[in-house]
Amino acid sequence: MANQISVKLEHVDGLKFNVQLQDGRGIELNSPTEIGKSFAPMELFLVALAGCTAMDVQWIMEKERQKVRKLEVSARGIRRDEDPRYYETIDLEYVVAGANISKAAVERAIHLSQDKYCSIRAMLKETVKVNATYRIEERPAPGPKQLQASSPAPS
Amino acid sequence: MANQISVKLEHVDGLKFNVQLQDGRGIELNSPTEIGKSFAPMELFLVALAGCTAMDVQWIMEKERQKVRKLEVSARGIRRDEDPRYYETIDLEYVVAGANISKAAVERAIHLSQDKYCSIRAMLKETVKVNATYRIEERPAPGPKQLQASSPAPS
Repeated sequence: MANQISVKLEHVDGLKFNVQLQDGRGIELNSPTEIGKSFAPMELFLVALAGCTAMDVQWIMEKERQKVRKLEVSARGIRRDEDPRYYETIDLEYVVAGANISKAAVERAIHLSQDKYCSIRAMLKETVKVNATYRIEERPAPGPKQLQASSPAPS
Repeated sequence: MANQISVKLEHVDGLKFNVQLQDGRGIELNSPTEIGKSFAPMELFLVALAGCTAMDVQWIMEKERQKVRKLEVSARGIRRDEDPRYYETIDLEYVVAGANISKAAVERAIHLSQDKYCSIRAMLKETVKVNATYRIEERPAPGPKQLQASSPAPS
């Protein structure tokens, strides 16, 4: 994996910036009040943090041979009222669905991500309080001959 | 400005996740090796940091009535080799072009962003070394009757 990442931002107007990544991928930034189809920096930060830990948990659960049929991670950040308006609190909720998912495995995966693997989590000061919770949903694998509702074939 | 931001990630396959923001905007995450048109969390983190400070500098330069005709911010992050593979060093370069841009105003704007306004910068531990440099390009405003090279009119 490359250990160096570069991005370049060009001002367009107001607080809108076009961003170019190394290989030509692009993304548009703007202030929350003019957001349109763009993204605000604090939104992308939260996406980055949640994505980092979601990938860790997915990867660790696979290594642990857990049959995960759904993984969702929700993140909510609450900003300070004064400058700098950083996130004082970030709540992460992991929802793992599958057959016989081990509670211990989920806890271990979240713990490993938060404490060992997630690069974005590792850059945060202690003034940013990150709370992680999880929920396991039992969802048995479908049987090989499971009946499915079907629409009538088009005539 | 809202002080709360929420995002939700849903696993698709491999390490691909679909992200939904509150108002339906979406973005796709994936690992760097499968990136396609998606983004990797560490890329978005760098975009978020650069975007945050770029917006601050643009806003402060306007307040200071500087005639900025171009603002570009480049960011380069260098990751550690060991887990967690966070950015040990982040280099930010600001390029400001315009007529009679004040060096002192540029330095003040960068300083205020780094130390006071940029919420993402404010969340980073001291183990992440952020270097900020700048370059000013003199670019006079075009005169009202400036000659322009023109292509022959289509016949």
